[in-house]
Amino acid sequence: MSNETYYIEGPVPETPEPGEYPSPWKTTEVVGTRRPRVDAYERVSGAARYPSDIVLPDMLYGAILRCPHAHARVTTLDVEAARSMPGVAAILTDTDAEAQLKWPWGQGESSPIFVRECLFEGETVAAVAAETPHQAHDALRAIRVEYEVLPHVSDHDAALADGAPKARETGNRQGEVESYSRGDVEAGFAAADVVLEAEYSTPYEIHNPMELHGAVARWDGNRLTIWESLQGVYSSQARLASVLGLPLANVTVSNPYMGGGFGSKLNTSKHTVIAALLAKKTARPVKLFLSREEEQLATGNRPGVTMRLKAGVTNDGTLTAFEFHGVSSAGAYPGGGAGLNDWQVRDLYACDNVRCTNESAFINAGPSRPFRAPGHPQGSWALEQMMDALARAIDMDPVELRLANLTTVSQARGNQPYTSTGLRECLVEGAKAFGWAEATKKPAGSGHLRRGVGVAACSWIAGGGGPPSTVIVKMFSDGSVNLNMGASDIGTGTKTWAAMIVAEELDVPADGIQIENADTATTQYATPSGGSKTVPTESPAVREAAYRVRQQLVALAAEQLGVEPEVLTLGDGRVFKEDDADTGLAFRDIEGLRRRGVVVGVGYRGANPEGKVVNPFAAQFCEVEVNTRTGEIRVLRFVGAHDSGRVLNRLTYDNQVFGGIAMGIGFGMTEERILDANQTGKMVNISLHDYQMPTAMDVPADMAAVPIDLGDSEANATSAKGLGEPVTIPTAAAIANAFFDATGVRVTHTPLNPVQTAALLAAKREA
Amino acid sequence: MSNETYYIEGPVPETPEPGEYPSPWKTTEVVGTRRPRVDAYERVSGAARYPSDIVLPDMLYGAILRCPHAHARVTTLDVEAARSMPGVAAILTDTDAEAQLKWPWGQGESSPIFVRECLFEGETVAAVAAETPHQAHDALRAIRVEYEVLPHVSDHDAALADGAPKARETGNRQGEVESYSRGDVEAGFAAADVVLEAEYSTPYEIHNPMELHGAVARWDGNRLTIWESLQGVYSSQARLASVLGLPLANVTVSNPYMGGGFGSKLNTSKHTVIAALLAKKTARPVKLFLSREEEQLATGNRPGVTMRLKAGVTNDGTLTAFEFHGVSSAGAYPGGGAGLNDWQVRDLYACDNVRCTNESAFINAGPSRPFRAPGHPQGSWALEQMMDALARAIDMDPVELRLANLTTVSQARGNQPYTSTGLRECLVEGAKAFGWAEATKKPAGSGHLRRGVGVAACSWIAGGGGPPSTVIVKMFSDGSVNLNMGASDIGTGTKTWAAMIVAEELDVPADGIQIENADTATTQYATPSGGSKTVPTESPAVREAAYRVRQQLVALAAEQLGVEPEVLTLGDGRVFKEDDADTGLAFRDIEGLRRRGVVVGVGYRGANPEGKVVNPFAAQFCEVEVNTRTGEIRVLRFVGAHDSGRVLNRLTYDNQVFGGIAMGIGFGMTEERILDANQTGKMVNISLHDYQMPTAMDVPADMAAVPIDLGDSEANATSAKGLGEPVTIPTAAAIANAFFDATGVRVTHTPLNPVQTAALLAAKREA
Repeated sequence: MSNETYYIEGPVPETPEPGEYPSPWKTTEVVGTRRPRVDAYERVSGAARYPSDIVLPDMLYGAILRCPHAHARVTTLDVEAARSMPGVAAILTDTDAEAQLKWPWGQGESSPIFVRECLFEGETVAAVAAETPHQAHDALRAIRVEYEVLPHVSDHDAALADGAPKARETGNRQGEVESYSRGDVEAGFAAADVVLEAEYSTPYEIHNPMELHGAVARWDGNRLTIWESLQGVYSSQARLASVLGLPLANVTVSNPYMGGGFGSKLNTSKHTVIAALLAKKTARPVKLFLSREEEQLATGNRPGVTMRLKAGVTNDGTLTAFEFHGVSSAGAYPGGGAGLNDWQVRDLYACDNVRCTNESAFINAGPSRPFRAPGHPQGSWALEQMMDALARAIDMDPVELRLANLTTVSQARGNQPYTSTGLRECLVEGAKAFGWAEATKKPAGSGHLRRGVGVAACSWIAGGGGPPSTVIVKMFSDGSVNLNMGASDIGTGTKTWAAMIVAEELDVPADGIQIENADTATTQYATPSGGSKTVPTESPAVREAAYRVRQQLVALAAEQLGVEPEVLTLGDGRVFKEDDADTGLAFRDIEGLRRRGVVVGVGYRGANPEGKVVNPFAAQFCEVEVNTRTGEIRVLRFVGAHDSGRVLNRLTYDNQVFGGIAMGIGFGMTEERILDANQTGKMVNISLHDYQMPTAMDVPADMAAVPIDLGDSEANATSAKGLGEPVTIPTAAAIANAFFDATGVRVTHTPLNPVQTAALLAAKREA
Repeated sequence: MSNETYYIEGPVPETPEPGEYPSPWKTTEVVGTRRPRVDAYERVSGAARYPSDIVLPDMLYGAILRCPHAHARVTTLDVEAARSMPGVAAILTDTDAEAQLKWPWGQGESSPIFVRECLFEGETVAAVAAETPHQAHDALRAIRVEYEVLPHVSDHDAALADGAPKARETGNRQGEVESYSRGDVEAGFAAADVVLEAEYSTPYEIHNPMELHGAVARWDGNRLTIWESLQGVYSSQARLASVLGLPLANVTVSNPYMGGGFGSKLNTSKHTVIAALLAKKTARPVKLFLSREEEQLATGNRPGVTMRLKAGVTNDGTLTAFEFHGVSSAGAYPGGGAGLNDWQVRDLYACDNVRCTNESAFINAGPSRPFRAPGHPQGSWALEQMMDALARAIDMDPVELRLANLTTVSQARGNQPYTSTGLRECLVEGAKAFGWAEATKKPAGSGHLRRGVGVAACSWIAGGGGPPSTVIVKMFSDGSVNLNMGASDIGTGTKTWAAMIVAEELDVPADGIQIENADTATTQYATPSGGSKTVPTESPAVREAAYRVRQQLVALAAEQLGVEPEVLTLGDGRVFKEDDADTGLAFRDIEGLRRRGVVVGVGYRGANPEGKVVNPFAAQFCEVEVNTRTGEIRVLRFVGAHDSGRVLNRLTYDNQVFGGIAMGIGFGMTEERILDANQTGKMVNISLHDYQMPTAMDVPADMAAVPIDLGDSEANATSAKGLGEPVTIPTAAAIANAFFDATGVRVTHTPLNPVQTAALLAAKREA
């Protein structure tokens, strides 16, 4: 051995003092610029290893037998023939000892892993592991299963009607009627000059991420490793440990890359437990990925809502009262992400008198799941069309009406002040960028092609983030850097802005930073990436971790240079005297760094300001062209003005805004789960040919993002707020408002597709 | 999404104060007990994934064309035919642009990756990557290569003789003659009553770990990942980055399991760079593992040494002088681990007058490499036989002679005191456990089967460990624990004692701890596992990391219980009041733990005591039976008494002692690299049939370890010193002394095999 191996000595690295938390950035060199993703090469070349790319030696493939009926009872289940099919390694049903576990849907409800009483099309009845995916699916077909088909109910309104078929034994009503009120709604309506009331509705929408749901499961003794396409590894570890009865330390969940989730991958899924059970039974790794059809049936949806909204306004534009009633359904089981349909009504505009009630039913369809801004696009669809109608009723510009009803406090949360409220700036700067004043003066046209413009605004109930988060930055002895964080990069560029923050603090190239993330065994703690909270939760912790390294580097260099740390600064891979750049040390020449091997900085997410609310705000503007003969709508352009605080990476910021608008166009114009309500209750548009996602042809090339940054240093140490969800909330309403501007026809049910619009336009012509 | 996801709030976890380093353990519950390995299941079931088990999608297999001559020049190298062999993906030779790199052997010497002037049998000439290992080896055979064979020299003594063939162009002498002296050696010998002088020698020994050397290399763009059988991932990352010209952050080295190294895997190897170059050229992962024959030729060895030792002693047993001259060779290149042959002479016993000189030659054989206690078994072979001879010359018990010359300071290091010197206790307690007094009184016997006993003692130059090391312990919200450390577990049970320390501090089950280690991307910094320093370097850092978690748990529980932290203690997964066990909280019920997601503790290895030396000491005792007709020796029993400070795991402690003795038996009795010195210079006992490792038949069933623990709290926070090397240092000399005791014949050249002993016994009979 060389002597160096044995005789490295040195002092214990000091643990940094708490409370030296970095103050707000004054200027930034890297943060706020446009940066391609640090993992662009891997993503574009195909080298990135997504969970669906995982191939392990000796791996089996799993597949699930799912109930083909909306509501049915399994009367016969015979797997004997399937057992002898080629390549079959294991079959699991509800009679197997291993499968006597409960899957927790939410709100205290659970069901067995394999089900005899099937409450929706897609319920799990049995599972197979085989040598190849084809053999697994062949074996499924060899399982002899008979069902007694039961009456079904497919619609939340119908489910609550008298004499409706039972969606489940215990009845169709889910939970109590929820109500909220403040002020005196009757007095509010009495004080109004104009009162309008309308019914709005939105259908069920499927997440449909590019990468299908699925997982690879491997056991080592009593320790389980799961590679899964997920938004959060720690949340999934917790659920798997709970379902399987294991300590957290026995469950590793890993997800370095994932191909979209939009809320449906905030946590692990039932099929992942099935993969784990198959792996346990066979003592081999099992890969189980769903088909697109299974994805549509069983991985979640955004609940449809029927909403009645009544609003009062005075002629000077003061909102006097709102009354809201919503009916919705979380599906056959409460899978999460239901509710919040009334949040925009409750909290967006200043209004003293508000009453909201919400009802929910069980129906025979797949469980709901959190979907980008749960409840908000639905509520916004109602509220923002109502605002448009109110403005027209009192002959006021709809931007002006909104500006007349701003608030700096969250009325629905005890009037707690927001740390920043950029809605005014969103409306004003957005309108300016859009050319709203000019656009509203332009006539709609007189031929069959009519133009119109629309605006809609929103807040988002969350988006401030908060603890906990732990991040570790490790500088190697040559000055290159490793970043260790638990957060999944769900496609939004998390790794890139995190690297940019480290680059900002340590003045090293962002592209050179080695990033390890989203693995419960090897990376730090993070809550799931979702709720528009990844940036505001993680970015302060990343910044602190890098800052802790910076502090130590400066201290070590000061010791070596024989100067006070205060006179030193950092730049270009060196620590040097601020007033004499020649006196300094390259990181790699700092003896203390070499002596320690690495310098490690730990960052935590600090608490949010007490008694205050951190929320993002937005206003979106659009212009449409309507073919009044066919009902077809061309979205010509969109401007999204967003107060999401500081922009970390302008390129991925813009991408988020454009992507959110694109998804909003899907919600508003193309997407809708269609069940065969009258006959089978089965989903009829189960393929992506029939379930229409917006394509490049549906999304305008002319889109612009207008970031509003009010320098909200109260929010957290990076002043960044969430962006991922507000970008999709007001889009559909803005389109509907523009459609009305073009045609004078109000469309209250999404999607705004030609089937509907042509009929409405025809009805108007006939009226 | 559920609201919990969005609204978790809480204070920033406090960073623990430095300086609250744990004080020495008073009592221990877990540390010091006998514990099977925490990864016993994985190791025994075959589930443990060693680097040689790694299979990646699309992986190629690499193989190396090696020079078959001891010294030769490549005159023709034609790879064209090989290129068109089935399955061949790439061939690399010295003419390829990618291969223009230098391999650093050590002491500033380097050679190209592919060599035309081959200085030893096994030099790398070309390499192939192919679809299967067989295709790769077939392609090697299709490479047309011609050599001009040059004169060789195989022996260090011959190499330094006048007129010797040149081992390399620049001559055979390696470096200067090294000398050391203290006191007045001539006066010392003059003052002696007895002066003895003898020549001792030891041959070259090959490491021969169970798992062959090798690696799997994969590139992602300009980032390299290496899975390699190693003792240290960070040292290997540094060397790979340096050779390949990459930042450290672009090189990940991973090695969760490894199958033995004994020093030959302290750092990465040249063939690993070749695997990386093949992977780069083919843009596919490449697996390159050596054959057993390559292992013997090219992965290192313990240099043979020729030693002349002269010693003086007075009749009362006072050592008056030592004079030592050693000649050795690091092989064709200085690969490390040469030298230190005189360290035992310099430093083990109190002696005022010492002079040592050492010479080294280049020879045409594979480079040396650190081998378990470099230089020490060689020097001990000489010194401890000399001590035996001196004792007999002055008619003193050899244990007594050693006891008469103890020292509490390191004379070779400026008389710096040892933090603890347990050599007296090793000799006294070892002798007691062995029954030395009775055994020495027993006659050797009179037939052809003679019995004898022997003793030998040692120190080890290192074994105190020291900074740097960083360890992180993370407690999950259910109270289960993750341990993150950089150190490789080289088969000694590192993971197990580390888990035991965490279990001790946090009172959680050691078996339940999730351990991540030996990965530069995801685990903390550690120097290589070697030099008997893994325990003393890492254990204090592990202890501190766990202690930091403990501190935070207690603080969080105190807050929740409304009591002062000082009144709380920890046990059985709970924090509770020391005087009222009923008032307490299970870890999983500590709100602060749940609020933070995890609690993280960072531990560092602190500095060693200034001006002091931390060394382990040992004495081993053995009994042998000699068949004086055949020369065969049966080792009947062994006692190893070791002052390695605190015992962390008595089971793996014993395993280390027994394993070290087994390896010492190999060194003393069976192992020897044999080169065909006179004709080809090639290794003739290249297979494990001919190169004889000790088997179960050679190792006695009757072995006992006697741990000596002087409670050395000065050494470090766990009081543990190194054990891995001292256990093998005195073994061979003890056997030789026992052989003399049985037969009256002194064997000064290892191995003590029947070829040699039968001849010596015959010569004695004839004399």
